[in-house]
Amino acid sequence: MTSGRVEALRSALAADGRAASMLVSDPSNIRWLTGFTGSSGSVVVTAGRVLLVTDGRYTDQARRQLDDAGLGDAEVVTAVSAAAMDAEVARLADGEALGAEATRLSHARWSALAEHASPVAADGLLEGLRRHKTADEVAVMERAASIASAALAEVAPMLVAGVRERDIRDELEYRMRCHGADGPSYETIVASGPDHAARPHQRPTDRELCKGDWVIIDVGALLQGYHSDMTRTFCVGEPSAEQLRWYAAVAESQAAGLATVGDGVPAREVDAACREVLEAHGLGEFFIHGTGHGVGLDIHEDPFVARTSAAILHSGDVVTVEPGAYRVGTGGVRIEDLVLVTDDGHRPLTSFPKDDPCPPSPPTT
Amino acid sequence: MTSGRVEALRSALAADGRAASMLVSDPSNIRWLTGFTGSSGSVVVTAGRVLLVTDGRYTDQARRQLDDAGLGDAEVVTAVSAAAMDAEVARLADGEALGAEATRLSHARWSALAEHASPVAADGLLEGLRRHKTADEVAVMERAASIASAALAEVAPMLVAGVRERDIRDELEYRMRCHGADGPSYETIVASGPDHAARPHQRPTDRELCKGDWVIIDVGALLQGYHSDMTRTFCVGEPSAEQLRWYAAVAESQAAGLATVGDGVPAREVDAACREVLEAHGLGEFFIHGTGHGVGLDIHEDPFVARTSAAILHSGDVVTVEPGAYRVGTGGVRIEDLVLVTDDGHRPLTSFPKDDPCPPSPPTT
Repeated sequence: MTSGRVEALRSALAADGRAASMLVSDPSNIRWLTGFTGSSGSVVVTAGRVLLVTDGRYTDQARRQLDDAGLGDAEVVTAVSAAAMDAEVARLADGEALGAEATRLSHARWSALAEHASPVAADGLLEGLRRHKTADEVAVMERAASIASAALAEVAPMLVAGVRERDIRDELEYRMRCHGADGPSYETIVASGPDHAARPHQRPTDRELCKGDWVIIDVGALLQGYHSDMTRTFCVGEPSAEQLRWYAAVAESQAAGLATVGDGVPAREVDAACREVLEAHGLGEFFIHGTGHGVGLDIHEDPFVARTSAAILHSGDVVTVEPGAYRVGTGGVRIEDLVLVTDDGHRPLTSFPKDDPCPPSPPTT
Repeated sequence: MTSGRVEALRSALAADGRAASMLVSDPSNIRWLTGFTGSSGSVVVTAGRVLLVTDGRYTDQARRQLDDAGLGDAEVVTAVSAAAMDAEVARLADGEALGAEATRLSHARWSALAEHASPVAADGLLEGLRRHKTADEVAVMERAASIASAALAEVAPMLVAGVRERDIRDELEYRMRCHGADGPSYETIVASGPDHAARPHQRPTDRELCKGDWVIIDVGALLQGYHSDMTRTFCVGEPSAEQLRWYAAVAESQAAGLATVGDGVPAREVDAACREVLEAHGLGEFFIHGTGHGVGLDIHEDPFVARTSAAILHSGDVVTVEPGAYRVGTGGVRIEDLVLVTDDGHRPLTSFPKDDPCPPSPPTT
């Protein structure tokens, strides 16, 4: 999947003008560029060379993954220390400015590098290239999303009074693995009742579900390094009229946001569309987070969909649209889908039903 | 568990002399110092004040956790941006030198901070304090270790030909959760056969176990932020004479290392003890990693137990002792326990049987 990416980085460096070579430190950027998945390594790309420096645990793996990525000409260097690596990097940079990730490299590492080379901040170049997902990447993310949906469909019948939040989380993560996930995409959220469901990032606890609870489930699968991301909200027992009103408002908000998504659309307009609907329903003050974010090799990546976002959506972006409303003492509702931005709108990658807040029944046998 | 830690940091700063105040950024250091577990936050400790800066998602949680930690006087500030936080931190530092974690803070963040304050590298101060585990911390880690042992005992009967590495990993992680773990302590390793078991950090794959395989299982549980860490190695089917020879050599090596552990002992002597035994058995060249590491809120922390380590072990350190031997085409053996360093030796926190490489039978009913 990595074909042409080194050339794309070289073109981006040339267009940017700050440096002709770049030191890449961020693990997702390294994986995107070279296919290397080790936990320790740095990549240097110059006009003519690609070098991956890693430690002895990963030398063989690095060679294999670079070859698989069509980077048979790239060099793998085993460094015995960070200092040895910096010296190697400096040798390649040959006194010229070297692009580096100032938001990723520690100050200590940057300072050590500056003793041998001339690092200049070149953050965002690779993140910009990573935004546009290829058909292969989209296919992996759609498969990850379908794994999470399958797990949620199996676990939804557990959403009854007396079951603990953590048990639902454990079953979801186990069943995603059974369906082929490499793991959960992030810490699965199962947030129930008047307090927990009122906190957008509540972690699962020993709390037992009660009749009348809201339960927010935010779950995704990790597959080949790619993430999926989806939220559904359910009622325990029959929803009340007030619960149906909240659910319908958030669903309408999300539909308005999704209808706005498309190539060339400012991300903040998607946020505004979601926010307007909730305000019209008197729930505007309870929407206490941004509307969405890009997803790919990172669970949160460019472009961000928020009130203050300067990003313009482009075909090939994969983003979430996830408005919500939260009030302590009531709980909360969030509905989130992962969508591919297309020339004329969007295509959903997540597909779990969201018509109402009633957990689906178990499949009949 | 956090009682007295802020005062301990102030004393360490005074003894160190580089700065009277400190900005703490590392999440494990923040948790150790204040009990705060949010994913976003910074702590500033001055001679008279403690301030936690976080974003709006975590304000309530921060207040609650600081109060629980006996830090009712500490202030919680909600910052709308990193820049706002830096300004707040600078105001507290009041022009004086401010200790900061140069190996944790990004260069970009450090540079922004330097516009308002005078950061100086003060890495290692908190890591040094965190080394000595209290009885409460040891009790949590011992409980985490017993959870991992219980899961391994339940899963060990699965170690037969035809079962996939990833299925064993999935069951181990699920069962640790069932026994009360908050999750796995790290990516569980299940490495089987002549190639996978020869790589110390191999991730589980779709490979099916075969008769005659080595299977290395490296598994730990996460509990209240603390980690456990243990490795056992098994044979699939009856071990051969050569397998028994390798296993006995590694077991003897580990016993020699454990016998060396104690208060005041240089960590490199533990490493040397393990290495000497393997060399005597002709397996020295196959021991391709260090002997161990500290464990606590981080899975790898000070002190490190390796050939080049300058650390001296002290009572209260919790470290692993995990020699191994690996050869591509054969596979490998690693035996790892987590131990508390005591005045007169050590106390094991992991307790799974390790007499031989045969998986224990399922409990009889």
